Amino acid sequence: MANETVFRRYEHNPVVTPDMVPRANSIHNSAIVRFGDGFAGVFRVDETDFCYRMHTGFSSDGIHWDITPETLDMLSEDPEVVMTDHSYDPRLVELEGRYYLTWCNAGAQGAKIGMAVTDDFRTFQQMEDPFPPSNRNAVLFPRKVGGAYAMLHRPSDRGHTPFGDVFFSSSPDLVHWGRHRHVFGPHAGWQSTKVGPGPSPLETDEGWLLIYHGVWTSCNGFLYYAGGALLDLEKPWKVIARTRDYLLGPTMLYERVGDVPNVVFPSAMVTFPETNTMRIYYGCADTCVSMAEADIGEVIAFIREHSL
Amino acid sequence: MANETVFRRYEHNPVVTPDMVPRANSIHNSAIVRFGDGFAGVFRVDETDFCYRMHTGFSSDGIHWDITPETLDMLSEDPEVVMTDHSYDPRLVELEGRYYLTWCNAGAQGAKIGMAVTDDFRTFQQMEDPFPPSNRNAVLFPRKVGGAYAMLHRPSDRGHTPFGDVFFSSSPDLVHWGRHRHVFGPHAGWQSTKVGPGPSPLETDEGWLLIYHGVWTSCNGFLYYAGGALLDLEKPWKVIARTRDYLLGPTMLYERVGDVPNVVFPSAMVTFPETNTMRIYYGCADTCVSMAEADIGEVIAFIREHSL
Amino acid sequence: MANETVFRRYEHNPVVTPDMVPRANSIHNSAIVRFGDGFAGVFRVDETDFCYRMHTGFSSDGIHWDITPETLDMLSEDPEVVMTDHSYDPRLVELEGRYYLTWCNAGAQGAKIGMAVTDDFRTFQQMEDPFPPSNRNAVLFPRKVGGAYAMLHRPSDRGHTPFGDVFFSSSPDLVHWGRHRHVFGPHAGWQSTKVGPGPSPLETDEGWLLIYHGVWTSCNGFLYYAGGALLDLEKPWKVIARTRDYLLGPTMLYERVGDVPNVVFPSAMVTFPETNTMRIYYGCADTCVSMAEADIGEVIAFIREHSL
Amino acid sequence: MANETVFRRYEHNPVVTPDMVPRANSIHNSAIVRFGDGFAGVFRVDETDFCYRMHTGFSSDGIHWDITPETLDMLSEDPEVVMTDHSYDPRLVELEGRYYLTWCNAGAQGAKIGMAVTDDFRTFQQMEDPFPPSNRNAVLFPRKVGGAYAMLHRPSDRGHTPFGDVFFSSSPDLVHWGRHRHVFGPHAGWQSTKVGPGPSPLETDEGWLLIYHGVWTSCNGFLYYAGGALLDLEKPWKVIARTRDYLLGPTMLYERVGDVPNVVFPSAMVTFPETNTMRIYYGCADTCVSMAEADIGEVIAFIREHSL
Amino acid sequence: MANETVFRRYEHNPVVTPDMVPRANSIHNSAIVRFGDGFAGVFRVDETDFCYRMHTGFSSDGIHWDITPETLDMLSEDPEVVMTDHSYDPRLVELEGRYYLTWCNAGAQGAKIGMAVTDDFRTFQQMEDPFPPSNRNAVLFPRKVGGAYAMLHRPSDRGHTPFGDVFFSSSPDLVHWGRHRHVFGPHAGWQSTKVGPGPSPLETDEGWLLIYHGVWTSCNGFLYYAGGALLDLEKPWKVIARTRDYLLGPTMLYERVGDVPNVVFPSAMVTFPETNTMRIYYGCADTCVSMAEADIGEVIAFIREHSL
Amino acid sequence: MANETVFRRYEHNPVVTPDMVPRANSIHNSAIVRFGDGFAGVFRVDETDFCYRMHTGFSSDGIHWDITPETLDMLSEDPEVVMTDHSYDPRLVELEGRYYLTWCNAGAQGAKIGMAVTDDFRTFQQMEDPFPPSNRNAVLFPRKVGGAYAMLHRPSDRGHTPFGDVFFSSSPDLVHWGRHRHVFGPHAGWQSTKVGPGPSPLETDEGWLLIYHGVWTSCNGFLYYAGGALLDLEKPWKVIARTRDYLLGPTMLYERVGDVPNVVFPSAMVTFPETNTMRIYYGCADTCVSMAEADIGEVIAFIREHSL
Repeated sequence: MANETVFRRYEHNPVVTPDMVPRANSIHNSAIVRFGDGFAGVFRVDETDFCYRMHTGFSSDGIHWDITPETLDMLSEDPEVVMTDHSYDPRLVELEGRYYLTWCNAGAQGAKIGMAVTDDFRTFQQMEDPFPPSNRNAVLFPRKVGGAYAMLHRPSDRGHTPFGDVFFSSSPDLVHWGRHRHVFGPHAGWQSTKVGPGPSPLETDEGWLLIYHGVWTSCNGFLYYAGGALLDLEKPWKVIARTRDYLLGPTMLYERVGDVPNVVFPSAMVTFPETNTMRIYYGCADTCVSMAEADIGEVIAFIREHSL
Repeated sequence: MANETVFRRYEHNPVVTPDMVPRANSIHNSAIVRFGDGFAGVFRVDETDFCYRMHTGFSSDGIHWDITPETLDMLSEDPEVVMTDHSYDPRLVELEGRYYLTWCNAGAQGAKIGMAVTDDFRTFQQMEDPFPPSNRNAVLFPRKVGGAYAMLHRPSDRGHTPFGDVFFSSSPDLVHWGRHRHVFGPHAGWQSTKVGPGPSPLETDEGWLLIYHGVWTSCNGFLYYAGGALLDLEKPWKVIARTRDYLLGPTMLYERVGDVPNVVFPSAMVTFPETNTMRIYYGCADTCVSMAEADIGEVIAFIREHSL
Repeated sequence: MANETVFRRYEHNPVVTPDMVPRANSIHNSAIVRFGDGFAGVFRVDETDFCYRMHTGFSSDGIHWDITPETLDMLSEDPEVVMTDHSYDPRLVELEGRYYLTWCNAGAQGAKIGMAVTDDFRTFQQMEDPFPPSNRNAVLFPRKVGGAYAMLHRPSDRGHTPFGDVFFSSSPDLVHWGRHRHVFGPHAGWQSTKVGPGPSPLETDEGWLLIYHGVWTSCNGFLYYAGGALLDLEKPWKVIARTRDYLLGPTMLYERVGDVPNVVFPSAMVTFPETNTMRIYYGCADTCVSMAEADIGEVIAFIREHSL
Repeated sequence: MANETVFRRYEHNPVVTPDMVPRANSIHNSAIVRFGDGFAGVFRVDETDFCYRMHTGFSSDGIHWDITPETLDMLSEDPEVVMTDHSYDPRLVELEGRYYLTWCNAGAQGAKIGMAVTDDFRTFQQMEDPFPPSNRNAVLFPRKVGGAYAMLHRPSDRGHTPFGDVFFSSSPDLVHWGRHRHVFGPHAGWQSTKVGPGPSPLETDEGWLLIYHGVWTSCNGFLYYAGGALLDLEKPWKVIARTRDYLLGPTMLYERVGDVPNVVFPSAMVTFPETNTMRIYYGCADTCVSMAEADIGEVIAFIREHSL
Repeated sequence: MANETVFRRYEHNPVVTPDMVPRANSIHNSAIVRFGDGFAGVFRVDETDFCYRMHTGFSSDGIHWDITPETLDMLSEDPEVVMTDHSYDPRLVELEGRYYLTWCNAGAQGAKIGMAVTDDFRTFQQMEDPFPPSNRNAVLFPRKVGGAYAMLHRPSDRGHTPFGDVFFSSSPDLVHWGRHRHVFGPHAGWQSTKVGPGPSPLETDEGWLLIYHGVWTSCNGFLYYAGGALLDLEKPWKVIARTRDYLLGPTMLYERVGDVPNVVFPSAMVTFPETNTMRIYYGCADTCVSMAEADIGEVIAFIREHSL
Repeated sequence: MANETVFRRYEHNPVVTPDMVPRANSIHNSAIVRFGDGFAGVFRVDETDFCYRMHTGFSSDGIHWDITPETLDMLSEDPEVVMTDHSYDPRLVELEGRYYLTWCNAGAQGAKIGMAVTDDFRTFQQMEDPFPPSNRNAVLFPRKVGGAYAMLHRPSDRGHTPFGDVFFSSSPDLVHWGRHRHVFGPHAGWQSTKVGPGPSPLETDEGWLLIYHGVWTSCNGFLYYAGGALLDLEKPWKVIARTRDYLLGPTMLYERVGDVPNVVFPSAMVTFPETNTMRIYYGCADTCVSMAEADIGEVIAFIREHSL
């Protein structure tokens, strides 16, 4: 394998594939967190009607998964706040003891962010969309920052947006959002078209560790890569370091061939404190989900060493 | 004049022209309110360096204007909240006894909305941007709606956005915004490319009266028109009626010839209760400011009669 | 006037303007024929709701016109065959003693050709559309050619088509069309983007005389010009001669300034046998209708002399 | 295999590959019918000079094919009616005892439909093109409908057309065509960019069974899928049911990797009355031909069950 | 007039118009130098066949011009070196006692620079094109710089190039060119799309004074402005100062209305040492030629004062 | 293998892969010449920071390569002449006993050609760029032609250029270039988008034998193929013969799957006089380097036989 840096791919990748869900065209770009003694996830399933619906999934080891055959059910107190049939790219974070789901809840006026909360991965309560459209990726921080709830997100336009920067916003109540700050934008190379947040950032002594995606436009379209950044603990819109080299790029056949060729899209992270390692889950070629592992210290060192 | 419906153009149009400001390339798309015994305004001035800066202006009759030669000065308590040199298309509203300015405070990541407050049109205090980019037009309501501050706005993308819908958002504190609702979008014809709010909506017995702009794309680019809508008083994202026919379209030489041909861009409204009339100010061909008058009852009747 | 070749503009141009029709945004690109002792026409009127509807008009001299305030009414025997609210750019021809109208009867799947017949310009009977979409201009020949009805037309795509060639088709019954032949296409210069038929061709000893439009794309969009061609009498898809120089191009303020700047769009022709002259009517800047006159012999000589 | 619905792929796919024809770059999107005791076909062969030429082929079982090394020869009575070197995507139907071939007979003015008839697959007699350009896919019905010959087709533009609807037209003589009707257009998801007819429709008790292709545009270009529809027997432009879920999508390596990645393009169907099954042939990744089978009743039931 | 800075327009503008040349569609973007006791020029004439051909012209005062009715004749020793029928935007410079003409000698592979020399404006000897395509504007310096002939130019692409920087190249023999250096590129505002050299630079004590054009892209296409720069005398690719404010922008009707609206394109300069003033000639709206005058010291002061 | 014509792929392809260089994302489109008793090369390495840097490599048999882990070092006498971090697609030629390297030395103003000379593949001396931007491929001839150094090159624009022709230029000193001539351009099919020179041309009795690349644009982007041409020995811009059929097209998985799917990019050639054969090296899918062999006589015969 040519281009592994600090992440090592799991040898039996991919770990989640379309044949694990009835009517799935593909299953990818999914959210996973620790839950109880094991792991729970919210998975993006593109069905054969090409609606994008979400399914929960459960696993004892994070590797072998049971994906719920039925789509995820969403409660809403306001009939104007609904989950669309174009719901995709979920992210999960545990915050104040509850699990918050953010996802792309796209509608007639373009992509926008949906938000919901669950305690048990059975019942999800939908909340207000945090931003007007168009916005394509959002993750909550796992704790309040500077006294307010905090979010990283990537405003977009309609269609296959040819730009994208990471922004930070904060909220007193998880309903109203403001104090928007630019965090970072594209840079020459694999991240020259757009960048967006991946999993919820990980708090470390050296700053918030963010795994993000970067997109490059070849003469045949977009390619997706994974990079990393360290953000200031108090003012996360201040970038301490950020990768010039990618952390993971499309190399394996399952990353290169699929509905969208050459996609590595990191969307979930779980950590193993006993070994100080992390595992990231990433969508492959918009078709399946794979896994890669790294030593957290090595990731931080790599980001610092290969920083822009 | 072929296409006047209920608005009658002022016979000495245009009323504000570039020669009234030093170094002005153009002066257009401007905000005007009643102030003291007369009128005050914030004017978009594109200077010969093509920076877009704002100037205040004062008038006793709303027709003859003194434009301040110096650019408008902005105070800010947070060094990260600044007015850019690409500040344009201001709107003004009197709200709870103070004057609130919203404008397009565009920066490196695209258009976004700036916000400020003044009591005297001498000192402006900048507030937080209400939304992440990209957003291109925003106007506050003149009072709280449903217990919260309320705003109409038009999310956009970077560049010459080929789409645009009017959205509604609300805020408890004029800093954090949420409960975003779609109000209305483009419709075939003169408003087929995009629509956006014009002046702050006027409260009437029949609903909020909104003058808005609509854009059509000919084989030579965009043309701008003025339309009107009636919005529900309690839930302004519910449309009661909305013009299928435009209220005002480019006809006169000063509307057809200029930096951007064929533009009628309504951006301010003042009312005359004694005659139940309104006057709108509108940018012409991205070059100067003109004025048109109508009976408010006739405008409402026209909107209802020619509603989609 | 710089660029008159053989056509001389009428000194009181434009002859038909939007203020002659209620609710007209513009009136242009219209069809005119001799009718009774005078002239009748079908006019394209873009109303202030930006629907494109057709109105009849009548004139004793072809210069002073009464435009019917009501839109043209269309009868149809088949409820699936209808005139849309996006009906524009009519052409008229007298054929076998009746008047046939062809126009762009655009619908949800793009531009297409509508067809109808009238005897009195009061009652129009709609016929089947001759072609599938997309097609943007069509004119019937004034007699059968080679034993079949004959049509010139310009297939297009949806939107502001960046290409366009003139095609010939024939029909045994004015319902079913076939034997499609390419006539001519764009050529460098003012006709480099697309070409399409103008008025119904005029039979002369030297061939069918066709006035056509050519389009050039500057860095600011499309510009429209009038050219001329001579087509073989028996096989009209054989080109005998065709102008390299345009016959008429946008020069006057009324041709340069309007909803679409710089448009000369020839759409009707009447001849004066006593003087061997022709008069063409042409849309100006998508806003009004003007007139120009020429000696028929000079037009033919010019086409031959400046032929590609 | 994740996404099989009612069709089961043949296990030894692909069945026709480029090495079966000299100088072939690829062989795909081909027409096959029953002929004599076996099967005959007209195959699209893109040669190494990138001309698209057609070759006949013969098979006793429809699985093992002899592709004629020489290109298909075409007779024409009119020197203006010719087969171009850009002839592709043939369809075949048996109609009134003869075999009719329709294909994309593209020329200098864009794609258009060619038509020919054969009795023996040795001699093909070219007929008039049924429509003006641009048109990209056409199939005849296997019998007259409502007393006239009938065709389904997909008008297009030049280049990689970003739209496409299925239209119906009829003809008294297979030369002149009219009474054009819209059948159906794109719909969100895998058929959101365009839809076009696949093999000639199959008459069933429940309507004409049409297998069609749908195209989706990812950030890396077009992907092709197969769907199905039931059309009214008497008025085939009336849709009874139509798949929301695709019938077959790119999954296998031979469908995902090739000159155009991710293409399943159904172009031929043969039925087996004894088992009430059908077999479709489909082009794979613009490179080779594969086969899939289904129970006809199940296909109809699936279309009804998953109808839009 | 709103936006005059240091240049004052001639009150009888335009000075050269299409009616001064037979068959001219327009006459603009032209080259003028002192010649004998008066002035000579090479004028871009777009004829009614839309070929772009050049004509000489002569004047005693630089204001009243006789344009030669015949097109400029070009001699060439190599049959592969020819002037095309798409020859436009000439520039002239007196260098070592001869007059050198550079122009856009566009051909089938895009725009490229043509070059020729004359002593009498009767006979022009064509030289080799200095650069491969695509290149759109070039001017020679009036003397050798650093021992070599020197040129400023703007490489381009085919079509309406959306970028453009000024480059410097040098040559030992006016045939072979090398040592290419970047001089300056676009900057936000009126010069944000592209910049290119105008007239041949003027040597002053403070550096080479270059008048250049800058282009901005509105939602309706390109607008052209005139700016100024001071370049290092020895290394002219080093910029000493360069205007942030434009020197001249489209304001007058003759600059705003024409074949391409809103164009001010400076292409010639003559100086009046007795008054230390300069006169520039500039193309207006791609239709005619106008004139403006300034004090040279004021121009230099303005450039320094409003430098980027 | 379907589409081999006269070239036979090496059975153990690819011969150079990213795992042979530290930090390589990919290694492809590289230059190889005979050097000493073996072979030397300059390889394009796209590193994980997506900078494109060049590395030397050495081999005794041309098949097994040692790629230098460090990037190639470049000396320059002029600080304004530098190798950028976007250096790619090198070509090598032995000329007058020294090795000349040309490559794409892309910078802020787009692609341009870099040039350097080495004697030992340890020390490279950078020379002046031969042309202004944009230019994307250049190869020197192995001897002077007509008394001057000679180059084939492909001018381009910025971005993924949709056009490209081969041009010839000559130079007295390898610094200044002129006498630019068009050699050949795109042609329908696999070379319809652009064509550019591959390895340095080989002198044969029948003319200069040039292997070149041709590009076709499918609905999913660019595909690259290898073709061949024979050019006149004295006037190499005169084409004697040129392939209508490609010599090599993407077929194998390593040519079809990678960072850019479906790329065969020939960039080096070595000959074996004892067997009269040639070996070409070509980049595969922008990911690795492969090899193919042919009899030189057969290549020439094929080009003549399948010439346009």
